[in-house]
Amino acid sequence: MQTIKIKAPATIANLVCGFDILGLCLEEPHDIMELRLLQEKKVIIHSSDGYQLPKDPQLNTAGAPLIEMLKSINEEIGFEVTIHKNIKPGSGLGSSAASAAGAVVAANHLLGNRFTNQELVGFAMFGEKVASGVKHADNVAPCIMGGVTLIRSIFPLDIIPIAAPRLFITVVHPQIEVKTADARQILRKEVLLKDAIKQWGNIAGLVAGLLQSDYSLISRSLEDVIIEPVRRVLIPGFDVVKKSCIDVGALGGGISGSGPSLFMLSKDINTAEEVEIIMKEVYTKMGLEHKTFVTTLNTGGCTILESK
Amino acid sequence: MQTIKIKAPATIANLVCGFDILGLCLEEPHDIMELRLLQEKKVIIHSSDGYQLPKDPQLNTAGAPLIEMLKSINEEIGFEVTIHKNIKPGSGLGSSAASAAGAVVAANHLLGNRFTNQELVGFAMFGEKVASGVKHADNVAPCIMGGVTLIRSIFPLDIIPIAAPRLFITVVHPQIEVKTADARQILRKEVLLKDAIKQWGNIAGLVAGLLQSDYSLISRSLEDVIIEPVRRVLIPGFDVVKKSCIDVGALGGGISGSGPSLFMLSKDINTAEEVEIIMKEVYTKMGLEHKTFVTTLNTGGCTILESK
Repeated sequence: MQTIKIKAPATIANLVCGFDILGLCLEEPHDIMELRLLQEKKVIIHSSDGYQLPKDPQLNTAGAPLIEMLKSINEEIGFEVTIHKNIKPGSGLGSSAASAAGAVVAANHLLGNRFTNQELVGFAMFGEKVASGVKHADNVAPCIMGGVTLIRSIFPLDIIPIAAPRLFITVVHPQIEVKTADARQILRKEVLLKDAIKQWGNIAGLVAGLLQSDYSLISRSLEDVIIEPVRRVLIPGFDVVKKSCIDVGALGGGISGSGPSLFMLSKDINTAEEVEIIMKEVYTKMGLEHKTFVTTLNTGGCTILESK
Repeated sequence: MQTIKIKAPATIANLVCGFDILGLCLEEPHDIMELRLLQEKKVIIHSSDGYQLPKDPQLNTAGAPLIEMLKSINEEIGFEVTIHKNIKPGSGLGSSAASAAGAVVAANHLLGNRFTNQELVGFAMFGEKVASGVKHADNVAPCIMGGVTLIRSIFPLDIIPIAAPRLFITVVHPQIEVKTADARQILRKEVLLKDAIKQWGNIAGLVAGLLQSDYSLISRSLEDVIIEPVRRVLIPGFDVVKKSCIDVGALGGGISGSGPSLFMLSKDINTAEEVEIIMKEVYTKMGLEHKTFVTTLNTGGCTILESK
């Protein structure tokens, strides 16, 4: 096998009460990436989009993980990567993670699948470090493995797939900019113990609800008493959108990653579509440009489209 | 039905990373309680032990929940309660919770089971308030419902049974006194966000491990980075006991409730018994009086022994 074409999906990190530990893979949108095996130790990046992402592999979110992967193997090989980006950078939907995850999954196939998924997450996190300065796994893990993933620990890396029932996800992307660094900056370094206890009750409830397909428990547990109360001010209309969506039957939701996209989970497609109408209504009334879509949970993660 | 005899088991609250939200029911030890239905609105408490617990029903951990239960029903009835206490008060094994839980479960049977388990937990928490000044449910809930229970929320009360695989529990009770109020006092009111994130990764891992019978994940998740580092100083020998027990194969463990008892979970009886030997060795070497026992997870909670 010399070349491979792969689909790298969007993801939602910081799943409400699961800040930094729970992420979820979306069926749409997704990037398309092509990788070609080279006979010398180098990484070349091409990009077919208008986003002006860095071409220097050291600074590119697909390049940095591949450089790490090559460091770990004693062979004169390399990769030529072409990225067709559909996940808008800065949307809060794991655009950088998709490049990092797609690159390592594709490269691993070209190398005969010698790395475990957990090792691939380890490489892909170097892409996140390039993108945001912080190694985090709650986008790259669900992007690689699909479904909902728990990052129990980063050092050492410990990733647990959490089987989930059917979920529909409605996303609204208000056309504003929220820098990940700013979103991190405004968080307090200390939190009240009583709030932390509430949060770990909710995260435990959410995991139990997902594993037991208990939609009511999922819904009751989708509450974030620590991060959301601080970050909601970054997203105009946050409270109105959230309340209106829950009023029409959404299970719950919140800020996707560090924003500005918001997401809502629903049990059925009709509710998810009604939620989309509500989101459009709120932002149209506010005069704020926005994009919306409805999708489902992607249980496959990065998938191969073609190889030869 | 006029009289009933019930078994009210010991419990372990604050299950390592599950401070205030996860509790577990033990097969042994247990109190025996007898309740007799009265034709007037009053609660009478008898006690057959040497612990000099208050007989005034308002101040008694079995009495206060029954008074609350009677307030909620418009009938001229009451209860005469006899408590044969085997769970030593102040051991950290849910002695007060057993009285509260046993009383409300027995009373509910005498009343034709008109209350749900969750309502019974609500009444029983009034007993915990009498005992420690704080309404908490992580002993009374597992005592009433058996197994491992998650208290997702106290206000409103939301209790979720977490199905668990077979577990053996070894307990050592060093003969020292740790007051619950003191154990609460030394906790910091604020915690680092980064520690809280570690903790909710572990609690999510523990719940997933229990529900999926994944002993390795249970073991990796039995880590408390917030409460244990503060409270361990209250229990002489804590670090040595914990390390030695894990070295011989225990999955993990920690302080039971607010101490002084320590517990360790094991996958099989042989390990649990080896853990008991280790515990004895450590405390014998330290010259500290102690009691130990090995038991299993009790999945039935409070159970009726006799009724007529």
